[in-house]
Amino acid sequence: MTKEKNNKPSKELPLGFVDRQEKELLVRDFIISNIKEVMIKYGFQYLETPSFEYSDSIGKFLPDKDRPDEGVFSFKDDNKWLSLRYDLTAPLARYVAKNYLEIPKPFKRYQLGTVWRNEKPGPGRFREFLQFDADFVGTKSLQADAELCVMISEILEKCGLAKSEYIVKISSRKITEELFKKIDVKDEKQKLTILRALDKIDRLGWDGVKELLGVGRKDKSGDFTKGANLKSKEIEIIIETLKKKSPETEDLIEMFKIFKDYDFNNYEFDPSIIRGLEYYTGLIFEVNLKFDVTNNKGQVIQFGSIGGGGRYDNLVNNFGNYEAPATGISIGLDRMVYALMQKKEFKVKQSKPVVICVFDKNLMKEYINVQTILRQAGVSTEIYPGESKLKKQMEYANKIKSPAVILYGEDEIKSGKPTLRNLSSGKEQSIEIKKLVNEIKKII
Amino acid sequence: MTKEKNNKPSKELPLGFVDRQEKELLVRDFIISNIKEVMIKYGFQYLETPSFEYSDSIGKFLPDKDRPDEGVFSFKDDNKWLSLRYDLTAPLARYVAKNYLEIPKPFKRYQLGTVWRNEKPGPGRFREFLQFDADFVGTKSLQADAELCVMISEILEKCGLAKSEYIVKISSRKITEELFKKIDVKDEKQKLTILRALDKIDRLGWDGVKELLGVGRKDKSGDFTKGANLKSKEIEIIIETLKKKSPETEDLIEMFKIFKDYDFNNYEFDPSIIRGLEYYTGLIFEVNLKFDVTNNKGQVIQFGSIGGGGRYDNLVNNFGNYEAPATGISIGLDRMVYALMQKKEFKVKQSKPVVICVFDKNLMKEYINVQTILRQAGVSTEIYPGESKLKKQMEYANKIKSPAVILYGEDEIKSGKPTLRNLSSGKEQSIEIKKLVNEIKKII
Repeated sequence: MTKEKNNKPSKELPLGFVDRQEKELLVRDFIISNIKEVMIKYGFQYLETPSFEYSDSIGKFLPDKDRPDEGVFSFKDDNKWLSLRYDLTAPLARYVAKNYLEIPKPFKRYQLGTVWRNEKPGPGRFREFLQFDADFVGTKSLQADAELCVMISEILEKCGLAKSEYIVKISSRKITEELFKKIDVKDEKQKLTILRALDKIDRLGWDGVKELLGVGRKDKSGDFTKGANLKSKEIEIIIETLKKKSPETEDLIEMFKIFKDYDFNNYEFDPSIIRGLEYYTGLIFEVNLKFDVTNNKGQVIQFGSIGGGGRYDNLVNNFGNYEAPATGISIGLDRMVYALMQKKEFKVKQSKPVVICVFDKNLMKEYINVQTILRQAGVSTEIYPGESKLKKQMEYANKIKSPAVILYGEDEIKSGKPTLRNLSSGKEQSIEIKKLVNEIKKII
Repeated sequence: MTKEKNNKPSKELPLGFVDRQEKELLVRDFIISNIKEVMIKYGFQYLETPSFEYSDSIGKFLPDKDRPDEGVFSFKDDNKWLSLRYDLTAPLARYVAKNYLEIPKPFKRYQLGTVWRNEKPGPGRFREFLQFDADFVGTKSLQADAELCVMISEILEKCGLAKSEYIVKISSRKITEELFKKIDVKDEKQKLTILRALDKIDRLGWDGVKELLGVGRKDKSGDFTKGANLKSKEIEIIIETLKKKSPETEDLIEMFKIFKDYDFNNYEFDPSIIRGLEYYTGLIFEVNLKFDVTNNKGQVIQFGSIGGGGRYDNLVNNFGNYEAPATGISIGLDRMVYALMQKKEFKVKQSKPVVICVFDKNLMKEYINVQTILRQAGVSTEIYPGESKLKKQMEYANKIKSPAVILYGEDEIKSGKPTLRNLSSGKEQSIEIKKLVNEIKKII
């Protein structure tokens, strides 16, 4: 091999990144247009923050090392670190602090945007996601939290889901707060360890969680995770509380009353919901899809969470002394697209063009004429975009799943009647140009 | 100041990045929906490549130093460099090479996406842009190049521009190629210096360009740019050729014939068009908006270019021996949004919610009832999202530019007649709930 050949650049993508095809993108557009419609109806304001923020503005992963690449993609710029946002909430908090005097209070905004996580990529683990967020900033009213749950439910139903196909699971950080008081845990690090353990109920079940609340747990690979070192009495109190069927905190009781006023009942109280660790201070919720999908081990499982959110009353205060209690929801659009594509009944229209075959370049004007007539009637159409024999043109039309080709050679042009070949039936018809649109509309 | 206060994170954005507000985003959505409609009609396939690529895949800025941050945002990942894409063409070439066996040939795709440039930020110079690209790969037919020009013209007119408000300027790299032969320039570096000089005609005029083709040019700040060192005889030949009024290259003559077949005449031959330097091999074109805008010096100028493109027959070959001659167009959406917003006649509808004031939290069920009725009728509506006195609620409604508020206190609830206050006229009406939708639709 020559040196030149060895120097060819890579044709592959970095791990954790993918190319997305038309069908998926059309499903995503369908979801996004439903989201926007509901957002307008609910009075949210459309906002877009940039992909980069100063690393210190988005908190969490401060650049305390030479290169702060843990969890985020960071770049050094004139001695300050920039990071690609890892969610849309931290940039919102920055936006509110920056524009505090100008924004309406309360402030309701929604945003659609890509977020990046610089995590170890693996099969099916991405490092770039499209998210949809809606937030209320500057209100303690639980009416706001309730609206978010009602709203996501309206979006899901607009996207074609039945009530039986999703559920909003609700809990509150007040429950774990009260628990910490009860078992006298004051250390923040200890609290985090306990929350992290509880967050794994879905995956490990109560037995695994019990181990993590106690001395620790060895997983299948033999790796040992140190536990929270609680006494078995304390663990019993936690488990007992989290298995309760009805809420005892004020916020949850009020929330469920508001739901009743909304006639909204597609939710359930689930104290085992934890929703990460970062900044939640009150109500938390998780949106779960309940249809069955087959996972990569061939097992039929429920789809699970596509996102969630909750109340975070102190986040904007990281930037200064602002009165900005807040609540928000965050939905993973890629997961939602994937979920809808799993549903057999869900169809999205992919308009593939009718192909006008090129017999003779000198007849181009005639082809353009037919193309213009069809396009003006809203029919997706193209003149074969190359210079090949008819056989190759037909192969092309089949490859792109064209519904039909138009054959318009010298003879057909003389008679003013192109031949229309239906590519799914194989049937051919000789049709006057003025009747072409009608005939094509029957088969697309 | 306490240490804590000094540690507050920055509320500012890094230079070159901006927050975008609703009005701008709605104009952008309007443009994007027009683009998508035309793309479908023209038979282009929707594709999305990720924001990151291996740095070597997107060429140009290879990481030859410790940190390849010249022009792009790059990031070291397991000993390979990743970069945020700086355009959508290089990722397309990578995609075609990666999927060469599967894609239809020719391959027509469009993409909308953010691109990043790690350039020195300055006022009004951004480092993040939204671009729209459409390309044909695998065809030498000039029909493809012509379609791109006709297509962008259809998009602009769909967005509301008159024929007199834009023009597609056309030239060909064959012109400069022939020039290089004529004046016997073979060195690639020398060719680049000449092209770079010619690319500045717009900004410097012919006199400035002449200097850059000769010994060099000193600008106002005193900075000297070394020239191409051509003899004055050679410079004369160049200028004379580039001032010609009609094309002499085969590709341009054929292209203009195709335009005639399309009945497309909103173009002009302009041999001073250069379109950057990278990879063009044939026809090039630039889309210019012709309405007057006032620049930051208070001068009335024409808006100028919003993008362009051309033929690049060798780009995919960087990845190996592929038969993939190509042509494409690239439009800067942010510039196009800015241009449309400059047009007085251009209006975009911003639906602001009707605000239902909260008199008494215990009456929430009644408010929710009214809200549901309005939302179901498609009226953007919200219950005031906080817990404040009526005065603050009214301030809020005015701040968000709400068209009307609904006052629904105990008395009104008893009579079943909310009060509707029109916020632009100040007029109040007492209206039965069932007539509310009709009355509101008159004022929004």
